[in-house]
Amino acid sequence: MNIKKKQIILTGDRPTGRLHLGHYVGSLKRRVELQNSGLFDEIYILIADDQALTDNADNPGKIRDNIINVVLDYLSVGINPDKVTICVQSALPALHSLTFYYMNLVTTARVSRNPTVKAEIQMRGFVDEGLPVGFFVYPISQAADITAFDATVVPVGEDQLPMIEQTREIVEKFNKTYGETLVLPKAMIPESETQRRLPGVDGKAKMSKSLDNCIYLSDDTKTVKKQINGKMFTDPTHLRIEDPGHTEGNVVFTYLDAFCTDDHFREYLPDYKNLEEMKDHYRRGGLGDGTCKKFLINVLEETLNPIRAERAKWEARIDVVYDILLAGTAKARETTDATLARVQKSMRINYFSDRHIVNEWDELLKRPMNREK
Amino acid sequence: MNIKKKQIILTGDRPTGRLHLGHYVGSLKRRVELQNSGLFDEIYILIADDQALTDNADNPGKIRDNIINVVLDYLSVGINPDKVTICVQSALPALHSLTFYYMNLVTTARVSRNPTVKAEIQMRGFVDEGLPVGFFVYPISQAADITAFDATVVPVGEDQLPMIEQTREIVEKFNKTYGETLVLPKAMIPESETQRRLPGVDGKAKMSKSLDNCIYLSDDTKTVKKQINGKMFTDPTHLRIEDPGHTEGNVVFTYLDAFCTDDHFREYLPDYKNLEEMKDHYRRGGLGDGTCKKFLINVLEETLNPIRAERAKWEARIDVVYDILLAGTAKARETTDATLARVQKSMRINYFSDRHIVNEWDELLKRPMNREK
Repeated sequence: MNIKKKQIILTGDRPTGRLHLGHYVGSLKRRVELQNSGLFDEIYILIADDQALTDNADNPGKIRDNIINVVLDYLSVGINPDKVTICVQSALPALHSLTFYYMNLVTTARVSRNPTVKAEIQMRGFVDEGLPVGFFVYPISQAADITAFDATVVPVGEDQLPMIEQTREIVEKFNKTYGETLVLPKAMIPESETQRRLPGVDGKAKMSKSLDNCIYLSDDTKTVKKQINGKMFTDPTHLRIEDPGHTEGNVVFTYLDAFCTDDHFREYLPDYKNLEEMKDHYRRGGLGDGTCKKFLINVLEETLNPIRAERAKWEARIDVVYDILLAGTAKARETTDATLARVQKSMRINYFSDRHIVNEWDELLKRPMNREK
Repeated sequence: MNIKKKQIILTGDRPTGRLHLGHYVGSLKRRVELQNSGLFDEIYILIADDQALTDNADNPGKIRDNIINVVLDYLSVGINPDKVTICVQSALPALHSLTFYYMNLVTTARVSRNPTVKAEIQMRGFVDEGLPVGFFVYPISQAADITAFDATVVPVGEDQLPMIEQTREIVEKFNKTYGETLVLPKAMIPESETQRRLPGVDGKAKMSKSLDNCIYLSDDTKTVKKQINGKMFTDPTHLRIEDPGHTEGNVVFTYLDAFCTDDHFREYLPDYKNLEEMKDHYRRGGLGDGTCKKFLINVLEETLNPIRAERAKWEARIDVVYDILLAGTAKARETTDATLARVQKSMRINYFSDRHIVNEWDELLKRPMNREK
């Protein structure tokens, strides 16, 4: 017998800021493709405000403000709430309960060894004295998120693979201890390098709010131009137009790799048929950085314009956006509460789901008492 | 203006075994006194099955069985469900959520320094590799328990003082970060030494199931005699009846200190008016250990007989006991859910309690976007 398991995706973001082109390339675009692929029975996007609070406990206002920004970003890029359930983590109490119980199945040593946790601690500058317990246990909380939705597939970057490994360990430990209950999820890694990570406009590995090297999906044309013309690194050896240039590690070309199509050339730079021809010219010498940047701006504007137009529509209907969030969270609550009920049943701590335990206790009290453990 | 704060007690036990005379002397007797004192507005007794699971994750059946034993022990010693709310921790999901949020307010270093946690880790034989995260964070989970009930008073042994200190730190941190929300609890320490801790019948510091040195409240007469005659240490230098004996560190006299009254002498040992006279004779020499033990057995039987009789009544009505637990847990759920709602409101993560945030988000989107943190 081969019962086809439901294919369920869980993905999400920490609402600590507006989403940018890095998110678009790294996950959002892919999510829309997955949504439209017809391959999945359910897709949940979790706005991970609880997780964001683990290292922003003193600033819940920032999280509160950015929930709406993140939802607007989702809707603007084409996430369709009829196909995808958008939900807010803090309104799903089953996730807290699952975290609580999974904490019994993982040792402190195991969590300390998690490379993602190690790297994040480094990045966020927590010294030993200052690591919040909530942040320390966040791999366990992520396992709660993933399993609560019975997710079979979790799209992540390669750096997040240890988190999925931790979740799989918890699932296996739980099922072994309490019987088959939880679904074992799989990571889905981006297929191509350009899908993985877009550098900041300054060439730094990642777009980051604090470095001000982002282009946000909600940025206007003026800001996009300012970021690209003012901050984007090209090839430092390419001093005069006629000098030969490098396209590898040249941020303008990294962005073009990620965004431009042959259509863009026909429209904005008909001197070349495609990106290869343009790169050849740049490498030979004779193609100026200004021309390249101007083309990139046109390309990005073609990506951003429909997103902005969509955003403007939703911004004018925040009450509708709120309803989407409300409905999505209500649906997610049903799903996650059902998982918690299943978990409690497997653990046999569902004392109040029926009166069955009365008979069980009656029987127990008829047996002689055990003196020893 | 001086508004009198409600006086609320939270106390409880881990349901890992039947309760014994050590519990009776250390807490149960005192609880009944507090219940009848009229000084408290509310008293909650929490059956801490979730906490018991932190180091019994692979044996939930043991916890399940002992919930009924512990409740029967409560009712047998005179805990009155009309005055005291008896409730089950795992059926109070607000405690999980509060634990989750408090974890953001405590560092891993702070928890590691907790002397109670250190001692418990030692006692339970967890090596570094084997410490469950759930056990590591249990001081935070206890803070959730205490604050969820707005407890002002927590009766504890002196060894538990660091736990109350941790709770007070969390309350102060929470109130400072999110505004005055949580009630600052106080520890209530037993007044006299004999109230604090009864040694095992073998003279070991504590009664412990695994050492089989307990007298359980539900033990029958035969078992009590066996434990006392067979295992109880007296004075190893008191070889012949006529030898002078020591009463300090003599377990028989430690137990008599805790349990016997002048009435017991009139009834069972009229040679002496009171315990002082008896002790004097033992010290001079001429009083045999057998006589002392026989007297102690009579004294303990006077304590245990009404408890046994009460227990037998409740054992015959497990369905009523279940209803007590059900009603108590329902009341506790209301209380703890209300605290969680207050906490979420203070943290401003109550997005779905009303639609107020729609206006707030509308306003937010009219303001220019912040580029930097």
